[in-house]
Amino acid sequence: MITQPQNPSTRVLLFSLKGSIIPVIWRKVLFTTLLSSLVVATHGTLYHYKVTLTATPFTLWGLTLAIFLGFRNSAAYQRFWEARTLWGELIISARNLTRQVQQYFPQLDRDERLYLLQPLLAYPYALRNFLRGVIYENANRIADDEVRRHMASPALILNMLGKRVTEYARLSRLDPILLAQMDAQLNQLSQVHGGCERIKSTPIPYPYILMLHRIVHIYCFLLPFCLVDSIGWLTPVAVCILAYTFFGLDALGDQIADPFGTEPNDLPLDAMSRNIEIAVLEIIAEPLPPALQPEEGVLL
Amino acid sequence: MITQPQNPSTRVLLFSLKGSIIPVIWRKVLFTTLLSSLVVATHGTLYHYKVTLTATPFTLWGLTLAIFLGFRNSAAYQRFWEARTLWGELIISARNLTRQVQQYFPQLDRDERLYLLQPLLAYPYALRNFLRGVIYENANRIADDEVRRHMASPALILNMLGKRVTEYARLSRLDPILLAQMDAQLNQLSQVHGGCERIKSTPIPYPYILMLHRIVHIYCFLLPFCLVDSIGWLTPVAVCILAYTFFGLDALGDQIADPFGTEPNDLPLDAMSRNIEIAVLEIIAEPLPPALQPEEGVLL
Amino acid sequence: MITQPQNPSTRVLLFSLKGSIIPVIWRKVLFTTLLSSLVVATHGTLYHYKVTLTATPFTLWGLTLAIFLGFRNSAAYQRFWEARTLWGELIISARNLTRQVQQYFPQLDRDERLYLLQPLLAYPYALRNFLRGVIYENANRIADDEVRRHMASPALILNMLGKRVTEYARLSRLDPILLAQMDAQLNQLSQVHGGCERIKSTPIPYPYILMLHRIVHIYCFLLPFCLVDSIGWLTPVAVCILAYTFFGLDALGDQIADPFGTEPNDLPLDAMSRNIEIAVLEIIAEPLPPALQPEEGVLL
Amino acid sequence: MITQPQNPSTRVLLFSLKGSIIPVIWRKVLFTTLLSSLVVATHGTLYHYKVTLTATPFTLWGLTLAIFLGFRNSAAYQRFWEARTLWGELIISARNLTRQVQQYFPQLDRDERLYLLQPLLAYPYALRNFLRGVIYENANRIADDEVRRHMASPALILNMLGKRVTEYARLSRLDPILLAQMDAQLNQLSQVHGGCERIKSTPIPYPYILMLHRIVHIYCFLLPFCLVDSIGWLTPVAVCILAYTFFGLDALGDQIADPFGTEPNDLPLDAMSRNIEIAVLEIIAEPLPPALQPEEGVLL
Amino acid sequence: MITQPQNPSTRVLLFSLKGSIIPVIWRKVLFTTLLSSLVVATHGTLYHYKVTLTATPFTLWGLTLAIFLGFRNSAAYQRFWEARTLWGELIISARNLTRQVQQYFPQLDRDERLYLLQPLLAYPYALRNFLRGVIYENANRIADDEVRRHMASPALILNMLGKRVTEYARLSRLDPILLAQMDAQLNQLSQVHGGCERIKSTPIPYPYILMLHRIVHIYCFLLPFCLVDSIGWLTPVAVCILAYTFFGLDALGDQIADPFGTEPNDLPLDAMSRNIEIAVLEIIAEPLPPALQPEEGVLL
Repeated sequence: MITQPQNPSTRVLLFSLKGSIIPVIWRKVLFTTLLSSLVVATHGTLYHYKVTLTATPFTLWGLTLAIFLGFRNSAAYQRFWEARTLWGELIISARNLTRQVQQYFPQLDRDERLYLLQPLLAYPYALRNFLRGVIYENANRIADDEVRRHMASPALILNMLGKRVTEYARLSRLDPILLAQMDAQLNQLSQVHGGCERIKSTPIPYPYILMLHRIVHIYCFLLPFCLVDSIGWLTPVAVCILAYTFFGLDALGDQIADPFGTEPNDLPLDAMSRNIEIAVLEIIAEPLPPALQPEEGVLL
Repeated sequence: MITQPQNPSTRVLLFSLKGSIIPVIWRKVLFTTLLSSLVVATHGTLYHYKVTLTATPFTLWGLTLAIFLGFRNSAAYQRFWEARTLWGELIISARNLTRQVQQYFPQLDRDERLYLLQPLLAYPYALRNFLRGVIYENANRIADDEVRRHMASPALILNMLGKRVTEYARLSRLDPILLAQMDAQLNQLSQVHGGCERIKSTPIPYPYILMLHRIVHIYCFLLPFCLVDSIGWLTPVAVCILAYTFFGLDALGDQIADPFGTEPNDLPLDAMSRNIEIAVLEIIAEPLPPALQPEEGVLL
Repeated sequence: MITQPQNPSTRVLLFSLKGSIIPVIWRKVLFTTLLSSLVVATHGTLYHYKVTLTATPFTLWGLTLAIFLGFRNSAAYQRFWEARTLWGELIISARNLTRQVQQYFPQLDRDERLYLLQPLLAYPYALRNFLRGVIYENANRIADDEVRRHMASPALILNMLGKRVTEYARLSRLDPILLAQMDAQLNQLSQVHGGCERIKSTPIPYPYILMLHRIVHIYCFLLPFCLVDSIGWLTPVAVCILAYTFFGLDALGDQIADPFGTEPNDLPLDAMSRNIEIAVLEIIAEPLPPALQPEEGVLL
Repeated sequence: MITQPQNPSTRVLLFSLKGSIIPVIWRKVLFTTLLSSLVVATHGTLYHYKVTLTATPFTLWGLTLAIFLGFRNSAAYQRFWEARTLWGELIISARNLTRQVQQYFPQLDRDERLYLLQPLLAYPYALRNFLRGVIYENANRIADDEVRRHMASPALILNMLGKRVTEYARLSRLDPILLAQMDAQLNQLSQVHGGCERIKSTPIPYPYILMLHRIVHIYCFLLPFCLVDSIGWLTPVAVCILAYTFFGLDALGDQIADPFGTEPNDLPLDAMSRNIEIAVLEIIAEPLPPALQPEEGVLL
Repeated sequence: MITQPQNPSTRVLLFSLKGSIIPVIWRKVLFTTLLSSLVVATHGTLYHYKVTLTATPFTLWGLTLAIFLGFRNSAAYQRFWEARTLWGELIISARNLTRQVQQYFPQLDRDERLYLLQPLLAYPYALRNFLRGVIYENANRIADDEVRRHMASPALILNMLGKRVTEYARLSRLDPILLAQMDAQLNQLSQVHGGCERIKSTPIPYPYILMLHRIVHIYCFLLPFCLVDSIGWLTPVAVCILAYTFFGLDALGDQIADPFGTEPNDLPLDAMSRNIEIAVLEIIAEPLPPALQPEEGVLL
């Protein structure tokens, strides 16, 4: 996630490259601009054939383009926001479960409590590993060997948590209804796993992406022929601005729609895992690790 | 589901037919293009009568067309995504139930556990059979005769699961509150069944589809008369692009809105059923079957 | 509900009247078309005064028209889909309750089970009666006199179901927690009743409908004066197409927004009630009545 | 709520003032129309300075206007519909609670049952009083003095209901799980209170309203200068129609967004309170008061 | 939150600066207006080069601009409304919990009840402190030292509430199911914390903001070159109005999207915390502090 500067000046907003989508799309925008300069230089003729295009087809094409871009954009943002909401549920359930451990097992000593909560501390890291398809280093702080063996599978970690909770519930003769209350939090954690899995495994249907890319490219490549006669050497400027917004919206959609990667606009799974760890440790009054800080304005 | 290539090149995005909607609509697009060529060849006269159409009617028609296409497109995608979410609930509930079996019936041996979970393993396959209206081969791995007899009815499979759970709960004197927790997961599974049934049995109201088809066709067929005078032989090009986007959006909507079929853009019910099977078997530490792989870029 | 033909040919899609909204609106469309022919015949003069309208006002009016039509259309579809979802909950709760009866009251004989489930079988019919404001014939199959007396009030039927469930729960000393689980399903059934009641008793605010009708009519009546000078005798064609889409969208919205009636596009309450009956009977292994079939392509 | 006539004729739809928004906005529309007549009369000159405006600025302004109007309109309708849904929950919870009273306290005699349910019968009236900020007369039918003293505070009425339910639960040794089931309905009733409070206390942010009003006015006042040269004396007609739709949409949004007042388009809190009373009394087989009827087509 | 005057006159709506977004954007609007005056004064020439721009590029750019502005606006409002809804849940849960304390612990004396509810009274203030990143003065009324030490961490306050509730439940031998009911309200309070945290820590992706700012500025700066030839000295007027709506919509979005600050359009966290306090105290019949009043039309 790109961290937004507090009260950015107008200058930053207008000219900064940092946090902008430009690094991803400048090649395409430049190419389109050069192409349109070429069109102006040849006065819109192609092999001695004058290509005449009025604004009408562009207005009509714009109709579907608007539907496509609008749809794609909101679908992508919905995926992003749903993924964020799911990770938000993670911290809520983790806090609830820790609170319940404190309330219902007041007799536990520090070691037992940590043993019980180890899988909970590991769960977000395991989920991150699962979503990003890598086993990261920073899981090392988890002391529990049994937990560390399964850091690639959130379901197994959750299973372990369930076993430990049930075990302690039996030992301390917890009323089953309160065990059921804790079980509801485990289900919630499982819900997050399933939800993220769904977003990860089901992209926006591919033909939408294909079709959108095609219309955007055709639109930008043909546009100079329409503008050249009326605005002359301002054509490349106009096309450049349009290409910037079209390609930019398209590239942004691509990044936002798949929020579990490690691109700058993806969700900061590392930082959020750490925050969940901190939230749990705060409640049981353990020493807290520092929150992760953004590197060059990007939080991962 | 068409699996999206990782980082497709611009070339693939622009020219690939694989995963595109073109194979479905090329006939209509070609026909429309030829028709508009004919219009250009005859200079827009029909039986010696010069048909003059300005851009105004097209802009006005475009108004409702945009409403229709936009509405249809989001309604279709919502159906698709709701269906996917429902199947996502399936894997969540399956995992929860398996975890609960592990927690609450720790004394079960392997055979008993498998006997208990057989209907759960069969449930997604039964749901798939119900939704696609066929009994597929790969249900053969289900060893339990009683279950296999009902592979066409998710409700009966679920009923069986409920019976077995209640049976074991009685045998091991499970507290009713924990049985109720498991019952909640069965209700969740039933919810998925009911939800998919609803999507399958209630298409987008037919008159919308009819009206949309008609406006799109009329629009594409009349458009050349409007363009011929101003852009001449570029008319077929412009009409072809517009027809591609209109018919493409329309055909995509058709496929997405009914996501339980076996067309390339439908949900991969087979692969998802297998994944649920794997998720259950992983938790009870049984050998896992391989996940299904896409064939020619399509997962079914 | 109009049942959509499987893979309709392009011909059917373009020319079929069946399932189309045309029978409802042809009078208005014809009138508008004739009116615009008159305008062309008089060259746009009204009592010797030449009425000159450019495209500008129509574009500006089109702005609010688009907002109105788009809003109205999605509000109507949302009502339709919410109503369908509520009825979908009905089948889910009915199945859950039946499964619970099987699980928790295994000792019941066939007569007792049927006696217990009679109000559940009657509930969707009672709800349909309530929503359509009539007492239909096909409730006759309900054998239970007490139930039949209250076929006009879903609340009383549900009350009866609640009483019987509590009665049996007491007789068989069911744990209260499992009774509470069944009670949750009764609440769900009540939720459907309340939801449908809300949709039925609260239409889209009337002034929206009024204003939309007025703008659409004014738009269609004035349009010929704008087109006559530029496209001449094609004016009636253009106006006819526009009137078809405007009046059609409007009429469709009217039908969809109030989904409990007996117009072709309304929800098939009869067929759904029957399906719920079948779903319940399937689980308790009783003989099944046939599902209702569409008559002339319409399911009621 | 304005009750919609069944199958209104086209004539009613086009010319009726009843139920229309016209009485609210006719002053502004008339003023705008007169202003534009003045502009036409002076041929668009202002103090000997000819004001020339082309359609371009209006198209560009129209862009944000469309965003504003569309956003405002759906936000307003969502508030209206959420408020209606909350009141719909009220009737559902009231029915559930009454059914539970019947099921779980079968031994109560008529007086005890009425004593227990008095606060439930009073709750919607108290909520209405709270939302409209007045104490209405028709609460007089509530016989219970303790309840009547608190008719201005739904929270206290609900508290009283909770006390009575707990009291009777203790007396009849109800299993706590069933008491918890009833408590869930009380929470639901409290949810409605909180939800309505939120809608009432948080309007759509005021600057949106301000900005929308301003753009709409500027737009309508400047428009005649754009149209006068091309359509002459039809300008007032065109402006009048546009002003009608703009001001109408704006005024409608104002009424719909704040649905708890006593304007014609507000929710019929009185009628709904009465319906909830009827729903409760129906289940306990008490004599029913008549449902409220609309007065001059308006239900309050 | 800016409090909306009751029935503001048209004059207030048109000319009032209070509550308007103008104080935030007048610099930019003025700059843009001056710039366009300069363009008119030089007849659109830049260093002796006549810059000719037609309306076409602006219409095409307007396409993405509309998508961006529309998306941004609804995303911002959704965040605002979700934040408000979460705070609305706070008052609902607080009321429920207080009611449950009254029902389930009827034997508590006044001091015990206040001791038990202290963390609940402090919770909204702690949440506000957490969200605004400051420790405010008005928490002083909280008498309990243990609570006051943790006024910066809602999670710890909630933990304390959980401990006290469990403690009293043990003392008065409350049935665990009723304790579970109260626990559900604690989870709800935790849900609000997590939800607000999510909104606060995850802004709308920064590249959207960047890109939107850029297009809006480019659009407004280039527009005069397009208008100067057709409407002359009215150009600054037209540009000024457009800049007002564009910059205004943009600035409003900025304020609304981050609703926990202390800008005029942010949520009145102070007033809402006070209201929750009042709601709790009302139920336990304690003296009520006055509700907060808006200062100069703004509630914080």
